[in-house]
Amino acid sequence: MLSAIQRELLQLISASEGLSRTELALRTGLSKAAMSAIVRDMLGAGLIIESDTMAGSGQGRPSVKLVMRAEAAYFVGISLNASAVRMVLINLWGEIICRHDFPLVNNPEILVEHIQQALPKLFQDGKITADQVLGIGVTLSGFIDENQATCVQSTLLGWRQVPLAKLLYQAIGIDVFIENDAKALAVSEKLYGHARSLNNFILVTHGDGIGSASFIHGQLYRGAHGGAGEIAHCTIEPGGTPCRCGKRGCLDTIASLIAIQEQAKAEQLAVEDLSQLETLAMNGSAQAIALLHRAGNALGLAMANLIQLQDPETLLLAHQPATFDGLLNTVVRQSLEAHVLPAFAGKTPLIRFTIEPDTWAHAAASVAAHRFLTPR
Amino acid sequence: MLSAIQRELLQLISASEGLSRTELALRTGLSKAAMSAIVRDMLGAGLIIESDTMAGSGQGRPSVKLVMRAEAAYFVGISLNASAVRMVLINLWGEIICRHDFPLVNNPEILVEHIQQALPKLFQDGKITADQVLGIGVTLSGFIDENQATCVQSTLLGWRQVPLAKLLYQAIGIDVFIENDAKALAVSEKLYGHARSLNNFILVTHGDGIGSASFIHGQLYRGAHGGAGEIAHCTIEPGGTPCRCGKRGCLDTIASLIAIQEQAKAEQLAVEDLSQLETLAMNGSAQAIALLHRAGNALGLAMANLIQLQDPETLLLAHQPATFDGLLNTVVRQSLEAHVLPAFAGKTPLIRFTIEPDTWAHAAASVAAHRFLTPR
Repeated sequence: MLSAIQRELLQLISASEGLSRTELALRTGLSKAAMSAIVRDMLGAGLIIESDTMAGSGQGRPSVKLVMRAEAAYFVGISLNASAVRMVLINLWGEIICRHDFPLVNNPEILVEHIQQALPKLFQDGKITADQVLGIGVTLSGFIDENQATCVQSTLLGWRQVPLAKLLYQAIGIDVFIENDAKALAVSEKLYGHARSLNNFILVTHGDGIGSASFIHGQLYRGAHGGAGEIAHCTIEPGGTPCRCGKRGCLDTIASLIAIQEQAKAEQLAVEDLSQLETLAMNGSAQAIALLHRAGNALGLAMANLIQLQDPETLLLAHQPATFDGLLNTVVRQSLEAHVLPAFAGKTPLIRFTIEPDTWAHAAASVAAHRFLTPR
Repeated sequence: MLSAIQRELLQLISASEGLSRTELALRTGLSKAAMSAIVRDMLGAGLIIESDTMAGSGQGRPSVKLVMRAEAAYFVGISLNASAVRMVLINLWGEIICRHDFPLVNNPEILVEHIQQALPKLFQDGKITADQVLGIGVTLSGFIDENQATCVQSTLLGWRQVPLAKLLYQAIGIDVFIENDAKALAVSEKLYGHARSLNNFILVTHGDGIGSASFIHGQLYRGAHGGAGEIAHCTIEPGGTPCRCGKRGCLDTIASLIAIQEQAKAEQLAVEDLSQLETLAMNGSAQAIALLHRAGNALGLAMANLIQLQDPETLLLAHQPATFDGLLNTVVRQSLEAHVLPAFAGKTPLIRFTIEPDTWAHAAASVAAHRFLTPR
């Protein structure tokens, strides 16, 4: 296992483009001599390497940049977000080595068996052995307890109080951490993505459902009951459409892809996805335009509330492919600007990126990598 | 000045009912011998005392509880929230020693002169000398920069980029920290009030305006631009009443005491304050009932959004005297419950307390005490 100082150094290194012994000594408050000794041990253990490409300008050893060794550790990520389970294997740099899919079953015991059966194939494809894997992450849509061990509730999976981490650990013998999908993606963005240098940011995810997650003071903020980020069930239209949560007028009933699809169906618009609805709107369909305005206004308002209440450095928006190229995108941005305090309008950068087929499984693996790297 | 370890010990002691040398050693990871030496120095410096009333059960010195010495440090708090400036002097326990009021002037230079003239009287009444005062805190309604030094903007005071901390320090020679009123009250609740044992809580303040502030991971969360907690300008009724911020339908235009009063006036209800409006409602006035429902629904919805997004351990609500005893209170609670995800309904305790004439000045002094006690 890593010592606290080794974890701290790995995290400092991973948040940068490589750091020299001198920089590491400065940031940790340790002497250069102590740092040299620690670095020597970590080089010996294969955790880090000296970066050739970033070597200093001939001022000797202390200026050589140290980077993590990609092969120093591997992590498995498992996504339970769709009809299929996707597993990926990543290295310490977050690079995906290989992947494996199989159908999702809701029964936790059978699911654990299927995962147990699939892992050897994944390790074989990745040309590694099980003991090189230092953690497994699992993402799903639902509430997870603060120990990242138990699924408290998942409507999608029909689960309540499922101790998935324990079940998997008993079967596999590798540490397992489960996490809500939006929170896992925020971790992945912090560790490997757009938020590496940010201490306070919010991620909003838009797809069949809507989610959000925050890093505050450099840490994932999970909330007192793991419920932080439940933007989907903020009331946007009091007394509005009934939501599957039991309330009415939740953001989820207006602006999720499923809600947009259902509204289009209720209006008898012949569209199969958002792209077709955007095309209808572009061709002048008043119904399609109104529907996209309603959804975009609601999502923009909810994101503006996030900015009002949390004032993040940056707002990240992860969305499905081809869903933010037209009117919806325009209306979301207009609504966001219109509902933010004018003194703050335009001060919060919005970074959009697309959810790819590997995104959730990669996010799951990032959760395990983050646990490995984060000093505690 | 205090060392980092002295600050850490004072903060640990202040967050508890007193701690023994053994408990302090355990919590800091220091040896008992090292802790005894540090405690000896702090006793000698008059920072802490051994608590007689909490002495251990005869197992010798290590079990004697240590508490802060109330007279070890004094702080001044200055509130610029009303037509009058209130100054208070507090000791390290947060007890108010004495107070002094004088009329508010908006000109920063003249205000600084008036404060400078008033301080000797405050010190004299408190029977202390200036060198016993280790910090001055100032609260106002507006945006403060992240260094707690400059008022970026205050509509109430008509200020923009006023470096009040620097101006006051130059005149007085004591460290000065300024803070937004709701954030200062959250600090005061954490240090001396209902939130001493809480790491994640939200405070909402209700009065002529509405504010909020959060502690997350045990620290005040100020936001990337000092704008976290701007609940007053969350849009509740899109396209609704114009707000002084330039937007429409902000919470502030519906649920603040000023907004309620203005609505009552527009409806030609002969009421001078909220109590009279509550009486009208109790006597069956449909207008008064509708008005209190609208305000209560809006405030409850905004507080529900806070719970949805941040899932705090506890929600604190600070309000003016005699404003939450009737229908408004009932509707706020109903709305709060109705707009929180049913799985989380009732899970977040709501603690209400009344804003007293000393509250803001005491909060201001707490900001200075918090800076003194918090290791950095």
